[in-house]
Formats: sequence, C-alpha cells, structure tokens
Amino acid sequence: MEMKLPGQEGFEASSAPRNIPSGELDSNPGPGTGPSPDGPSDTESKELGVPKDPLLFIQLNELLGWPQALEWRETGRWVLFEEKLEVAAGRWSAPHVPTLVLPSLQKLRSLLAEGLVLLDCPAQSLLELVEQVTRVESLSPELRGQLQALLLQRPQHYNQTTGTRPCWGSTLPRKASDNEEAPLREQYQNPLRQKLPPGAEAGTVLAGELGFLAQPLGAFVRLRDPVVLGSLTEVSLPSRFFCLLLGPPMLGKGYHEMGRAAAVLLSDPQFQWSVRRASNLHDLLAALDAFLEEVTVLPPGRWDPTARIPPPKCLPSQHKRLPLQQREIRGPSGPRLTSAEDRHHHGPHAPSPELQRTGRLFGGLIQDVRRKAPWYLSDFLDALHLQCFSAVLYIYLATVTNAITFGGLLGDATDGAQGVLESFLGTAVAGAAFCLMAGQPLTILSSTGPVLVFERLLFSFSRDYSLDYLPFRLWVGIWVATFCLVLVATEASVLVRYFTRFTEEGFCALISLIFIYDAVGKMLNLTHTYPIQKPGSSAYGCLCQYPGPGGNDSQWIRTRPKDRDDIVSMVRKGLSDFSSVLAILLGCGLDAFLGLATPKLMVPREFKPTLPGRGWLVSPFGTNPWWWSVAAALPALLLSILIFMDQQITAVILNRVEYRLQKGAGFHLDLFCVAVLMLLTSVLGLPWYVSATVISLAHMDSLRRESRACAPGELPNFLGIREQRLTGLVVFILTGASIFLAPVLKFIPMPVLYGIFLYMGVAALSSIQFTKRVKLLLMPAKHQPDLLLLRHVPLTRVHLFTAIQLVCLGLLWIIKSTPAAIIFPLMLLGLVGVRKALERVFSPQELLWLDELMPEEERSIPEKGLEPEHSFSGSDSDDSELMYQPKAPEINISVN
Amino acid sequence: MEMKLPGQEGFEASSAPRNIPSGELDSNPGPGTGPSPDGPSDTESKELGVPKDPLLFIQLNELLGWPQALEWRETGRWVLFEEKLEVAAGRWSAPHVPTLVLPSLQKLRSLLAEGLVLLDCPAQSLLELVEQVTRVESLSPELRGQLQALLLQRPQHYNQTTGTRPCWGSTLPRKASDNEEAPLREQYQNPLRQKLPPGAEAGTVLAGELGFLAQPLGAFVRLRDPVVLGSLTEVSLPSRFFCLLLGPPMLGKGYHEMGRAAAVLLSDPQFQWSVRRASNLHDLLAALDAFLEEVTVLPPGRWDPTARIPPPKCLPSQHKRLPLQQREIRGPSGPRLTSAEDRHHHGPHAPSPELQRTGRLFGGLIQDVRRKAPWYLSDFLDALHLQCFSAVLYIYLATVTNAITFGGLLGDATDGAQGVLESFLGTAVAGAAFCLMAGQPLTILSSTGPVLVFERLLFSFSRDYSLDYLPFRLWVGIWVATFCLVLVATEASVLVRYFTRFTEEGFCALISLIFIYDAVGKMLNLTHTYPIQKPGSSAYGCLCQYPGPGGNDSQWIRTRPKDRDDIVSMVRKGLSDFSSVLAILLGCGLDAFLGLATPKLMVPREFKPTLPGRGWLVSPFGTNPWWWSVAAALPALLLSILIFMDQQITAVILNRVEYRLQKGAGFHLDLFCVAVLMLLTSVLGLPWYVSATVISLAHMDSLRRESRACAPGELPNFLGIREQRLTGLVVFILTGASIFLAPVLKFIPMPVLYGIFLYMGVAALSSIQFTKRVKLLLMPAKHQPDLLLLRHVPLTRVHLFTAIQLVCLGLLWIIKSTPAAIIFPLMLLGLVGVRKALERVFSPQELLWLDELMPEEERSIPEKGLEPEHSFSGSDSDDSELMYQPKAPEINISVN
Repeated sequence: MEMKLPGQEGFEASSAPRNIPSGELDSNPGPGTGPSPDGPSDTESKELGVPKDPLLFIQLNELLGWPQALEWRETGRWVLFEEKLEVAAGRWSAPHVPTLVLPSLQKLRSLLAEGLVLLDCPAQSLLELVEQVTRVESLSPELRGQLQALLLQRPQHYNQTTGTRPCWGSTLPRKASDNEEAPLREQYQNPLRQKLPPGAEAGTVLAGELGFLAQPLGAFVRLRDPVVLGSLTEVSLPSRFFCLLLGPPMLGKGYHEMGRAAAVLLSDPQFQWSVRRASNLHDLLAALDAFLEEVTVLPPGRWDPTARIPPPKCLPSQHKRLPLQQREIRGPSGPRLTSAEDRHHHGPHAPSPELQRTGRLFGGLIQDVRRKAPWYLSDFLDALHLQCFSAVLYIYLATVTNAITFGGLLGDATDGAQGVLESFLGTAVAGAAFCLMAGQPLTILSSTGPVLVFERLLFSFSRDYSLDYLPFRLWVGIWVATFCLVLVATEASVLVRYFTRFTEEGFCALISLIFIYDAVGKMLNLTHTYPIQKPGSSAYGCLCQYPGPGGNDSQWIRTRPKDRDDIVSMVRKGLSDFSSVLAILLGCGLDAFLGLATPKLMVPREFKPTLPGRGWLVSPFGTNPWWWSVAAALPALLLSILIFMDQQITAVILNRVEYRLQKGAGFHLDLFCVAVLMLLTSVLGLPWYVSATVISLAHMDSLRRESRACAPGELPNFLGIREQRLTGLVVFILTGASIFLAPVLKFIPMPVLYGIFLYMGVAALSSIQFTKRVKLLLMPAKHQPDLLLLRHVPLTRVHLFTAIQLVCLGLLWIIKSTPAAIIFPLMLLGLVGVRKALERVFSPQELLWLDELMPEEERSIPEKGLEPEHSFSGSDSDDSELMYQPKAPEINISVN
Repeated sequence: MEMKLPGQEGFEASSAPRNIPSGELDSNPGPGTGPSPDGPSDTESKELGVPKDPLLFIQLNELLGWPQALEWRETGRWVLFEEKLEVAAGRWSAPHVPTLVLPSLQKLRSLLAEGLVLLDCPAQSLLELVEQVTRVESLSPELRGQLQALLLQRPQHYNQTTGTRPCWGSTLPRKASDNEEAPLREQYQNPLRQKLPPGAEAGTVLAGELGFLAQPLGAFVRLRDPVVLGSLTEVSLPSRFFCLLLGPPMLGKGYHEMGRAAAVLLSDPQFQWSVRRASNLHDLLAALDAFLEEVTVLPPGRWDPTARIPPPKCLPSQHKRLPLQQREIRGPSGPRLTSAEDRHHHGPHAPSPELQRTGRLFGGLIQDVRRKAPWYLSDFLDALHLQCFSAVLYIYLATVTNAITFGGLLGDATDGAQGVLESFLGTAVAGAAFCLMAGQPLTILSSTGPVLVFERLLFSFSRDYSLDYLPFRLWVGIWVATFCLVLVATEASVLVRYFTRFTEEGFCALISLIFIYDAVGKMLNLTHTYPIQKPGSSAYGCLCQYPGPGGNDSQWIRTRPKDRDDIVSMVRKGLSDFSSVLAILLGCGLDAFLGLATPKLMVPREFKPTLPGRGWLVSPFGTNPWWWSVAAALPALLLSILIFMDQQITAVILNRVEYRLQKGAGFHLDLFCVAVLMLLTSVLGLPWYVSATVISLAHMDSLRRESRACAPGELPNFLGIREQRLTGLVVFILTGASIFLAPVLKFIPMPVLYGIFLYMGVAALSSIQFTKRVKLLLMPAKHQPDLLLLRHVPLTRVHLFTAIQLVCLGLLWIIKSTPAAIIFPLMLLGLVGVRKALERVFSPQELLWLDELMPEEERSIPEKGLEPEHSFSGSDSDDSELMYQPKAPEINISVN
C-alpha cells in the first residue's frame, strides 16, 4: 500500500521548478551542493575530528508598528533551543524547546513553494542581497523602492550589555554604502559571541505584516559565501541564510508564527544539513517534508501549546536521522567515541582490548606496560593546565579527610597497633608510588571500607590466638602479595567481567550495612563508657564530668547541607563538594564550643609509630611461633579475594567507555602495583591500600574537559578527561607534608568520625539500584516510578530477584556475625556463583534489565534479538529509552 | 491573503460525499446530529449541572501474530491520557500525554477519506456491526467470511485482577449468537469500571496488518444506540464508536501508529464533540483537520518522540476550543463556577456581593444574617458524611496542638497571668460559639501569632507601669469590642480590598521574623538559666543538675520528616499531616529518655485559673486607678486594627472564589462574633481569638468534595467544600473535654514548644512570594526560575519593589525594637499607605504582576488592555500562562 501525504500531494501538484532562478543556480553548482554522495565540502573539523557543518545562529526580526512607525525588532533567537524576547520584562526568556502549530508550517511551505528561492546567491552585502530579493515581478518600481528602504532599516536588538530596555537605535533608513555596512560595536560586545564556536554562521528570518503589499512575499536565500550583513543580526556573524516572509495584514499572529516556523526549521540539524546541500526548490521542500514527517505531535486537548518545555537533559540522537553517507563520515572519528548509545549498538558488554586474555604468563601485564609506556611523557605534560590546580586542591582535601577518618577508625579497631600517623604516611607513600607506576594513574589509592572491615576481623582473630599482631599481619601481607602476583601472572583480571551488578551491589550493600551497624554500635557503646548524666544522679561524685552527645549533633549537622532549600544553589554546590570537611569542622567546633568531654582522636606527639616501642620496620616474627607465618596464608587467601574484588570493581567502573579515556586501562599493571605496595605497607606496618571508587571518580570529574562554547540551554559537551599522573602525585606529596598537621588533629572527637562513617554507609546504600528495588517491594504499583526495568520485567520477577538478593545479604550477615566472620570475602565471591545459578531462574532478557549479562549469556543471545517481545508489542525503540536513563551510572558509588 | 492548508487541499480534491452510506444517514438524522445550533441531545447532567457528552473510554486492539497465529490484543487505552501495555512487564504503563507522528495522522486521514464511514449505524450487536462493516465492494465473498470470523474473535485483554501475565482466553472464533455476546465476568471485575463515571461509553480501534487483503480497509462507525459489543472492550461499557484499520503488511509500525492516531483523535474533547454531531464524511474530515490545526508540533531534533510526558498538573482550557453554542450551554452552570481562569476574564478582583457597601448602619451585618439564615439547618444536615469524621479527628489534633503551644507561650510571656488551662478553655468556648454563630463556620478560631505578639507587648507595658494586668486587659478588651462594633456598623470590612498582597506579606513577614527572633532568643536565654555544663567546672556543686539542649534536638527532628528521601511517600503524606504532633511527641520522648532537666510546661493541678488567687471572673479595676480604664482605649485602638487585619486577611483568603463556596461569606457577621467573643474572653481572663489561616485552610481541605470517578492520570475534580457547622463544633467540644488531659501536659519541655514556634516562623516566611523575590536579589539572571512575573516585569523593577518592601520591613522592625513597640499595628496599617504611594512609582501592569490591584487601579485599566505591550510583542496568551501558575495560591499561608 502506498499512501501519499497530503503535504506531498500539494507539493507535487505545484509547479516546483518554475520558481528557481536557474541563472543563479547554474552558474554556481559548486562542490557539495545537492544531496549527492560526495559528502560535505567543509574543511573545518571539530575537536573530535569529525568534519561538521558550522553551527547556525538563527534570529527572527519582526516588522512591528504598522502603519505608523514601522520598525524591525528582534523577537526570538535559536541555536539549539528557542529564546524569546520578553518585551515587557526586557530580558531573554529561559531557553526552551520550541513548539509550533501545524498551520504555520503548512503556510510557510505554501509561501516558499510560490515564492523566490535563491540558492548560492552571490550577494556580498545587505544592499546587494536586498536588491536580489526584491526583484519580483509582482512589485511595482515604487513599491520595490519602499520595500528596499524598509529592508535596509537597522533592526532593534535587545542589548544585554548596556541595560534593561531594548536599545533604540536610529530608525532612519541607512545609506547603502559599504562602510555603512560595517557591524556595530554592540554586535561585537554581545556576550553570545563568546559562547558561539569559531566559524559559526547566522541565519536571519524577517517576518511581518506590510499593508502596502497586495499579496504575500516569500523569499529564501542561501548565500554562496557567508558575509556579515551589517547590523542585521545581533551578533556579528557571517550570514548564510536569509528568509523573508512579508504580506498584507491577516488575522492572528500569522507572520510571527510563520517566522518562528522558519527559524525552528533552520535550527533543525537534519533540515540544516539538507538545505545546505539543496540545489533547487524541490530539495528545499523535500527537506521541509522530511522535517514534517518526523515532528512529534501533541494533541491539543492534552497539552497546552503555550507551555514552555525546558531543554531535555539529553538530546535525541541525530545519528539515525542523518543520511547514510553522512553517518559513514561520522563513524571513524577517534579511538573511543563509544557513547552509551554506541555501547548498546555493540551489545552491552563489548569486551575491551585490555580484558582479552593473551594466554601467556604475565602476558596481560606486559601488554599493559607496552600500552602505557608511550604515554608516559605526556602523562606529565598533559597536566599543564589551570584546571589541574583546582583538582589537586579538591582531591587533597578529600584524601586528607579520608586519611584522618580511616586512620582514626583503624586505630580504634586495632587498639592502637596502627593509627592516624600510619594512615598519613601510608597514604602518601602508597598513593604517590601508585601514581608513578600504575596503569590507570587517575585512580586514587585509599584505605577502603572492605579492607578496613577485614583488618578489624584479622585483629580480633590475632587477639583471640594471642598473636603479636603486626608480625602476623606482615606475613598475611607477604602472602597476599604472592597470591596477587599469581593472579597477575595468570591474567585473572579478565574474570572481572563475571562481576555483574548483582555482585557489585551485594558487595556494596554488605559493607554499607557493616558501616551503619558499626557506627551506631560505637555510638551506643559510648553511652556506656561516657553515660548521659541524669539530673539528681550523684554517681559521679563532685567532678561533674559531663560528656554530651556530641556525635549525635554532628550527624544532624552533616546531613543538613544536602537537605536545605536552595537559597543560593551555586554556593550550595560548592559547599556540598566539601561537605565532609565542613561536617568535621562543624562537629569539632561544636565540641570545642560546648567544651564536651568526648573521646578524641589519638595522635602521637612525635613522628614515630603509634604503637609504643616499635620501629618503622615490623619484625618478621615477633613473639609468634614460626609456623604462624605459614598459617597466615589462609587469611591471606581470603584477603586476596577481597583485594582483587575491591580493586577490580573500582577499576572497571573507572575505565568505563563513557569516560572516553584515550590512553587505555591497565588492569593487570594496577593489580601488580597493589601487590607490591601491599608488601611495602606490611613491612612498614602501614594500612593496606586499594583503589577507592568514589574519590577516584571525583578525581576524574574534576579533570573533565568540556566544550566551552555552548548554545543557550545546551549542556556543555563532554570531551574527555585530562589523563595524567601529576595531579595524583602532587596530592600525595601534599598529604605526606600534612603529617605535620598532626598536633591539630587531636581536637577531632571520635563521634564525629563515626558520624562520617555512618553517612558513608547510608549514602552508599541509597545509591544502588538494589535499594530502589527494595523500596518497590513496599510500594503499591500505582505510585511506583516509571523505571525502565519496570517497563520490561514483570513486577513479580523484579520482586523475586530482589528477594533472592535480600536472602543472600541475610546469609552474608549471619556468617559475618559468627566466629567464621573472617571468611566473608569467600562468601562475597559466592555471589558470583549465585548469580550464575540465577540464569536458570531468569531469562536473559530479564537479567539484562535487572543486572548485566555475563560473558556466556551475551553469546547466547542473538545480536538483534535481545527483545523478542519487541516486534510483537510494537513498543518504542529502546535505543532512545536508554538515552534517557542510561544504565551505566547507576552503580558508580561504592563504599571507599 | 488566503492560503490553503495542504491537508485541506487534499481533502477538497478527494470525492468527499462518494463514500457516505446515504441510506443509513437519511433514515437516522436524529436530533442533535450535525453541528447544528440546537445543542446536544444528552439529558444526562453532571454534578455541576452542565449537560455534557458522556465520557469516552477508548481502547486499541491490535491484530498480531501474522501469519501463523492471528489474535487481537489490547495494547493501549485512553480516557484522558494514554496507557500503553508493557507486554514484557505485563503491566499498564503510567498514564502519559500521547505523542503522535504526523504521517500517521495523515495516513489515517487518507484511509478514512477513501474508506467506509457509517454514522448512526443501527447495529445492535457485534455480529450486526461486523456484517455492516465488511459490506465493502472490494472484498470477495470468501475474504468477507474470513474477515468476519476474524473480527468476531475474542480479543486478549491484559487482566489486572487475575495475575501478572495477560490472560490468554480462547482464541477460537466465537459463534455469533446473542447470548455469546454477553460480556464476560472479567469485564465487570475490571477496576477501571469503578473509576469511570456512570454513562461512560466506549470507543474501540481495531488495527493491524492482514496479509490476505489486497488493499487497505478503513471503516469508521458511530453507533446510533450505544450497545455492549460482547468482550470487545476490556470493561463492559456500551460502545459508541468503532474504527477498523486493516491492510496488507507494510514497512514500519504503520497500522499500530495509525490506530494510536485514531484513538488519540477520539480522546480529544473537541474532536469527540464534532464527531458525535457529524452528519457525513465531510464533517468527520473537517473535525480531523480542525484537530490538525491545533496540534502542538515539537521539532524532531530537539525532542525525542519516544519520551513519555507525564500528565500536566493542569489541563489546557477546552473552553475556547468549543464552538460558540456549546460555550453558552456551559455558561450558566451554577452560582459560582468561577475558576482562576474566569477570574482573570472578569478582572483580577471582581468585587463579591459580600463586600459591597449598603450605606446603612449595620447594613452589612443584616445582609450577612439574611444571607446565612436560610442555610442554617443545612449547616448541620450537610455534615452527615463519613468524611466529616476524619476531618474532626485531624482538626482536633491540630487545635489541641495549637492550644498547647500558644497557651504555653502565653504563660511564658505573661509570667503566668494566663496559661495552658485558659488556652484550652478559651479555645473551646470561643471556638464553639463562633461555629454556632459565625458567617463562615469553616473558620477555625485560634490564638494567632500577631495577637500573641501584641499580648506580650501589652503585658510588658502594664508591668512597666506597675499595673494589675488582667483588669487592665479587661478594659482593653471592652474597648476593642466597642471599636469592632463600630467597624461592623460602618461596614468597614469592605475596605478589605485595600489589603493587597503587599500588605498581607508585610504583615506575615514581620510576624514570622518576630517568631524566629523570639524562639532563638528564648533558646539562648535558656543557656543562661540552665547553662551547659563544661567538664571540670565545679560551679554547680554536687547536685549535678544537667539540663541538655533538648530543644535543639527537637528542631532537627522536626524538620526531618519534610526532608528525607521518599521511601514510602504515602506514609510520608500521612506523617506530614501530623508532623507537629509527632515533633512534640518525639521531643518529649527524647527529653524523658535522656532524663534531661529542661523547663517544663507549667500546668495547674486543679481546674482553676493559672494565676494563683483569682476567680474565673476578672475584677473590673483590681488595684489599678480608675482612669486606666479610659486610657486602655489607646492600646485597644491599636489592637482593634490588628484584630481587624488579622481576621479579615484570613476571611478573604478563606472566601476565595476558587474554593467554590455555595453558602456565601459573612465578613461583617464574623467580625461581630469576634468582637462579642473578645468581650467574653476578656471578662473571663482567657486568651483572645481570631480566625487562623493555616488551620482553617486545613479544615476546608479536609472537607473537599471531589469527583470519585476519574480517568488514569487525571487529578480528581474539585467539586466544592462540605460547608457546615458541625465539624468545627465537635472539634471544640472535644477540645473542651481535653482539659482533663492537663496532667499529661506537664511532661512537655518548653524548648519543644519554642522549636515549633521557630518552625512556624520559618515555614510562613518561606511560603510568601516576597521571600522568592529576596532570593532573586542574590541570584544571577541565568539561574533564576522561569517565574511569570519575570516574564512581564523588568528585573530592576522587581528588585526595586523588593527593596522597598525590605526597607518597610526594616522600619517596622526598628519600631518594634523601640519602647514604642506597641504601636506596631498602626505601622502595619501604614503599609496600605505605602502601597498606595507605589502607584506613582510602578505602572498598573507592573503592580498587577508584583502585587494585586487596588479598587481604584482596577477601574483605571481598560478591561482588555491590561497588557499594552502584548499585541506589540506577539507574546503567548496569558490566559493559559495563568492556568499553569495561578497567582492566588501563593499567599495562602500566614502565621497563625
């Protein structure tokens, strides 16, 4: 069945070629005109290396004041979105998605079909252009003169720089000499000029009612060479397009809406592409019809046409809309352009080259070194940018906070066998060394939650067997380093792809719960050691030592910056970046102000190990029997599993394709470095370190490269990360220097650290999809959010998956609470097995939405058949759904 | 210039009348068919008395499974918004605004133009309908039989009641006997049936690809008598419309989209109206073209067509879209249909009859009594509804909380001259009396902030002059009652229209600031009386009385319910309604748990006045010289102003047109009651009472009548308020009975009440537009929200207005801090003068957006010329802008 669109019929009936000024066209066929397959002629290339058409700035000048005081006034402008001049308020509106009414588009089509279309017009000035445009049979010489004078009149632009009212320039007709065409100073001062990228072009739409015209006058001009047309546009840009829509007065806002329609059309990337290459009226109208075929239509009874839609967070992909030859040009544009969309096209888990097994001993490590070595010099040179300075400051504060918190808690957990001083020293040494050697130097090494939990278990284990802790710990470290080297040698890191979201979230949830449980437990314990004094109780005699609930206070204060109303949300963002530093300072301040006798952080007075009487080197045996050095292999095996999981989950998250890293990852090299540093820190009795997710992501985020020039309403374009080793290195050198801060640290109350600990647990728990699904369990279907996974998986199946995760978590918690607690890393690994078993319960489609696919499952699903119900139900395209709710960033927070 | 739409051209070229089955039409012209001016024939009338077409439920059944297993399956449904069946997840999607692509509408138009259109088809069963629809020349008898069997096949509906998977009924062709046509039990059990109003009709769209058809088959049927068509629809409703769209397989989702287009068309109120009255194909296509002319078009490059738009809070007005004769029918539909929209049409401040001056002494009062008397019996009968029971419970809790809080604070402010017991007694007596007598019995009388502030000033004044407080206060009360009676006699309440938002917000801001300042001050004072004990300080000897910062804790706890993540947001709503009760309970619990020695609420042990040694009647002079009874007239004058402003601002807010009160207001009668009660409470030494805004609004809100039947995604229709006197009366009787709660109240710590006080100040301050504008002062233009007033008033003018308000507030604050503090009510009245003077600084247009208009200003502006720039700028219609951000509800919170 072949049905014709009414629009197309109308066009085919009209005499398309009649209006083409063939003289103009034939003399200037030019390269690249017409939608021929020889691609665009632009030599300019964008930062990503993609040859692209220049950006178009579109302005609507309306003819107002008929009949007394005719004047042109700019009333709207477009780059990506529409900005409307609020005449009464004297300001540009917020950028919004333009909405049109259909008749205005159809009227525009008729007017263009019957009007004058000049493609590749050779005019070099506004005067020449106006002469060409007014060369229409229907105009008498007198009218033509009047019209020319009117078109040469200087338009009124709202002037952002000078004041609040639109500037009222001279409205006298300008003489048409070339030096009069020189752009005004205001055009140069326009702040929009700074935002538009070099090479941007302008398009102007002139629309309005003109009483002395007997019939409508439509003209569409594409200039052969873009030229600055005097003060026609508010910014001095070379003009490429010129559209004139004039006619006798009519009812309603006909010409205003037609002018807006023309401007919106010109701002559409697909129409722009076509009209830059159009060779005749037929092409122009075909481009308009193609636009009409793709517009989204909202029914009048259900949507108010005057409602302003704010710019969507994510623009629809133009990829599919472009003609084939243009898509091919965009394709090979860089080593790693893969976005979330591309990732979906290539399947959800396209194995990256870094994770392919070589099959040789240490093959992966050697490849990592080979891959990274050529970048080594650039890893320092690329850091020469001002942005790196602020990144250093930001990450330094975060690192020091981390060092204090984890150091304090470690001292608490190990009864002073280690402490804040070791934490500072270890962080500085291990971190700096890692930045110099690692495969992914953007990673920030830190004490992490899982390792802290393990160290606590190890300490209580060694106390149960009356062992000398540090020597025993040294042997554990030696064994862990050995096991990790074995893992490097056997390229075990490629197994990382079996860690799906199910594993990651189980890992994260367990550690978060331990954090919360510990923090609350510590706080309650404090009420035993430092009980709250009741009035009249005289148990404490006369000294009246009153320790108040300082820790409690600090918790409420800490959460406040996130909750309050957005008085000055800019300020708010800045404060939230340093929220934990502020929380510590506030907590300390309150503690000092109230003079509470809270337990404080213990800091040695001199630069010496926290444990009295030991040197910097841990003795290999201490008082332990020699065979404990062999027995240490067992806990070391467990710790190795933990270290491997903790390190690699972070590494996978950091090396995700959406961060567009250019220099490649180094999973094997990273693990090798961690193993070496494990040995070093064990020998010196310092804490153990692996990569920390949150702080590393913050590091990457502070090094984002973004396109500066961006259109109103557009979010800045993400260009990549400044990949280098210097920021990390400087951060850790500064951390080392901060050891001399130690005397200040003794004012920090422990409850403040417990509060931060609690917060980290709650924050990590609330960031994972698992928590969302647990909430779904409690929510009636009507009130559930419109999550993508709920669109594709039956609710009972979602609940079953959540219930299984809850049971796993319960089992892990029980094991954690028994004397066998130390084997919990093994149980975490067991999650991978459970996940594998889930393949028998859930279909691959369900797992794709609830989790990710494991390598075998991916192969088991045909490339295009991920959704067999799809063709059946006629549902919306998933590609675009994914654009709106990308699955990837949902799990980018883990406990560090 | 007359331009034709391509669509129209296409239509006019096609042979419109050819397809009309004239036999059907001529035999059934029927009353009300065709868009003739004789109005709709429906005898059914809705609750508001407007004759309306029945609601239409539209369902899309798609033909799936070609060629192996053909079956009809319901894949979408519409009432107001679209719900899509998520096949994989087995659930209905959230309701959303339907979006279409233009080609599908155009293809539908072509198909209908060439297809079969049966208007007023007399079919009485699905079998008859199918026979009529398949009577097309192009079908061979064999094909016709196949098609009929297919159309009689029972469609698959997703069954919400039985389970998670779509129910798979028998797919065997059903025999066409009449008892087989009986609707299934599932159709009756469908929960949607309960939601649709009685008289709702169904429309079914059948669409799909059918391989054995050589050419597309389109049919549109309007049944003469709506009839239940077996199990065609998921709910058993009589069907009115039937649309068939079948054809040979084509590329893409052509028939699915065409079917959706047909369903969306049918769900449009304007199209529905037209198609119910269409008499031939021409009318049908004209209705479709009218729809096309009004659709909103979003450009493909700036909007993802697959994004689901949630239902807007406010549907666009259909008023303007309806033809003229239908508008007239809707017009005289009740005593007070005026919505925000109508209000704008009639000017912003249409003077209500209650506020028109009669010119006679006590004329207003007499009119109020005359107006209210006929309703008096119904004021009790209308309360016989279950909803009133829950309203009583809710308002009782709020009233008791208020009585405790204000009573406690009053005791605090007057050094025990009054207290909680007086507060309970006074609330009960005054409240109940007011409910029995008042003009607006929905008003809840309460101690309010301004009166509390004044009483505090009065007390310190009397202390400064060593007066006996209660006798002095009695004379103030006597004078206030006198002045108020004068105000009633002179109909001063009509001046209420000079209280614009400027005055209301100035009033509210000052009182809020006093609340905040007092609460913080009280708390800091406590640290002097009950200092925080430092470790080692032995100043307190051995008793170790340690009063902790209990009040501080309660504040954080109190604000938390508003801030937290929405775990179970239903639960959350319920909790937030009782947030202050919960805050008090939590505060008390924490205080008791920690055993803190906080100052507690003082409650007398017996039922006797709080001040020791006085009886229930206040002696007229006490120890004061007699002439103080005359001098009391001066503070009484000030208090009268305050009482008048406080009472009338609340009354204006409560009697706003958008609450659709049927029984009228009684401004004069209310003030009269307040005056009488003033006398009574002064004689008994009870607190003074006026109407409290927030609690009265809560009372009205809990008595909302709403349409129960509502379509998915639609907000319930507001029908009015259950206006009666009984709920208020019962609330105050219960409050009186709660005096015996007194022994429990002594466990409430004062800091908890200060916390609630602080919260009320902050909440009131943050609810007013003035605060929003103060924030604008600090915000760069780019980050400012898209407020309507910013679209219409230059930013500098907005800032100037805000600055003037800030200066006024500063002056008020300074006066409040001097010994002349007691004259602050006069200064509040001065705000009206300042506002009047602002007319010289700001244009009426600016004041309309920044404030409201005063009576004179309204007259000075021509009815249609509120926005002279409007026609000039060609801006959007303000009517619809107002729909989205109605100005009225912005000031519905004041300090009570």
